[in-house]
Amino acid sequence: MSGDSGPRCVVPACLACLGEIPSLQLVLVGQAPLLEELIARHPRVDRARLSVVHAGEVIAMDERPAHALRSKADSSMRVALELLRERQVQACVSAGNTGALMALSRRVLKTLPGVDRPAMFAALPTEQGVCHLLDLGANMDCTAEHLYQFAVMGSVAAEALGMERPRVALLNVGTEEVKGNQQVKQAAVLLQRARGINYVGFIEGDGLYRGEADVVVCDGFVGNILLKASEGLAAMIAGEVRAQFGGSLASRLVGVLALPFLRRLQARLAPARHNGASFLGLQGIVVKSHGAAGAEGFRSAILHAQAEIRENLPQHLHDRLQTLLVGH
Amino acid sequence: MSGDSGPRCVVPACLACLGEIPSLQLVLVGQAPLLEELIARHPRVDRARLSVVHAGEVIAMDERPAHALRSKADSSMRVALELLRERQVQACVSAGNTGALMALSRRVLKTLPGVDRPAMFAALPTEQGVCHLLDLGANMDCTAEHLYQFAVMGSVAAEALGMERPRVALLNVGTEEVKGNQQVKQAAVLLQRARGINYVGFIEGDGLYRGEADVVVCDGFVGNILLKASEGLAAMIAGEVRAQFGGSLASRLVGVLALPFLRRLQARLAPARHNGASFLGLQGIVVKSHGAAGAEGFRSAILHAQAEIRENLPQHLHDRLQTLLVGH
Repeated sequence: MSGDSGPRCVVPACLACLGEIPSLQLVLVGQAPLLEELIARHPRVDRARLSVVHAGEVIAMDERPAHALRSKADSSMRVALELLRERQVQACVSAGNTGALMALSRRVLKTLPGVDRPAMFAALPTEQGVCHLLDLGANMDCTAEHLYQFAVMGSVAAEALGMERPRVALLNVGTEEVKGNQQVKQAAVLLQRARGINYVGFIEGDGLYRGEADVVVCDGFVGNILLKASEGLAAMIAGEVRAQFGGSLASRLVGVLALPFLRRLQARLAPARHNGASFLGLQGIVVKSHGAAGAEGFRSAILHAQAEIRENLPQHLHDRLQTLLVGH
Repeated sequence: MSGDSGPRCVVPACLACLGEIPSLQLVLVGQAPLLEELIARHPRVDRARLSVVHAGEVIAMDERPAHALRSKADSSMRVALELLRERQVQACVSAGNTGALMALSRRVLKTLPGVDRPAMFAALPTEQGVCHLLDLGANMDCTAEHLYQFAVMGSVAAEALGMERPRVALLNVGTEEVKGNQQVKQAAVLLQRARGINYVGFIEGDGLYRGEADVVVCDGFVGNILLKASEGLAAMIAGEVRAQFGGSLASRLVGVLALPFLRRLQARLAPARHNGASFLGLQGIVVKSHGAAGAEGFRSAILHAQAEIRENLPQHLHDRLQTLLVGH
């Protein structure tokens, strides 16, 4: 119901996904009359795979998470998460208020044993392939223990998604032991002791893009700023290439050839906007699609959710965390 | 004496600068026999503008700042800073250990009245021109008051360097008031009250590169990671362009035309490595050149120092801070 563009964008995006992914069954949660009206505009909707569950309230994009928790028992976000808790659906995808989605997910679904705080997790492109970065913005202040938990969750999730013995690193201002703030130094001590984690040490911002690790761990403040700065820088570079190569014919050729490539790169650098980011550490699968995501973004978030369903990621995390976190 | 490549790189770089900048007078501080030997290899050195001051000890790149403070009274870094304190030189440029340089600068030179901690400050390219970012890595944990002081120093310095009414913003994960960690939220309250500062609110990572502010403030942990990630991403993009456009003739043309442009952009994205970063808030001018800086980087750091001497930046900061910080 929310997101930057609301159901007028989300409903057509969902219907397109339904057409493209035959195995998909969707439940749309929100103000039923409006949703039905938007669905009715499309011919040939397979209603056997699409249902609507009514929820009268909407959490605004600028609403404080604490307020969303206290009031609005009938918000579309909360009702969707309750369907997930009751196993009536297998995953929840939302383009709404990130803070509220995280707060409500914790309240309704609860975290896995041993996990204090769920983290947002997505893949960034690197010179070697991809690198999974977490947390991307769910947790502003993190203790060493939180960072340790993120590292464990990120490692297990990357493995479940097909990586073998993922190299796990802590994002820092230097690679020497003495560098960084207290949290990151203490988290390093915890990770050095941990068994079953392929901890490779500190990594700097440039090392991330050189592909020196498969899972990179930081607090949500740093992760969110890094992600958005990367997105902004890629956009700036694409813009400068466009401006620089608009002149001569040879120049324009560069533009024509280079821009589609730079556009693809830009999209890969904005995973939260384009591909969805997973919430890790909850007793259920929740994927955040960006507020401004178009149909393509929503489709990608839904595919992410399907992959996590296929791998049964929360159960897998639960089992591994039992040995890695609960006992430690 | 230190830096990633030591005096064998720094001395020729300094001699080149001396040739290029007729107004420059240089004092090289370090192990005199070695420095004299390196100088003697070059013909036609204008010794009227070049002197050597002996200092027997060297602070290693991986030495803890606390250790550098306690011991090594005769390190090249400390002796150079003492020359500055005694007004025998007008600025100090170093490619050595950043943490030690900051700790020794504070000890030897002292901070300006009202300044708790100096900050590292440099310009990044944006869609609109440049943006001054601070702190770039001198201060790992910052309170709201520290961030406020950085904002004031950054604003005054940007103005002294020629910007009119620089727009000052706090780096955050969102632009709404409720977003961010406690430090950044409280710093916003301080800045909203401040007179004489053109505070424009929170800025996100992408807003920085869109040029939405002239001075962007963050703690040194975030600033350093942002800077290095930007550098790494630009290198990755340049590398992918190179790989992508190595094939057909048309493709190779793109490479040939686009790569010099991308290389220039890369250099602008690594100001600490290529252009030097200023330490703001000290009773003296200190410029950090990157440890791996070549002659070009050292030249640029020296030019930076000269610009600050010309503007009498520490005095200018002192006067403005009297009204902006000391009274507030």
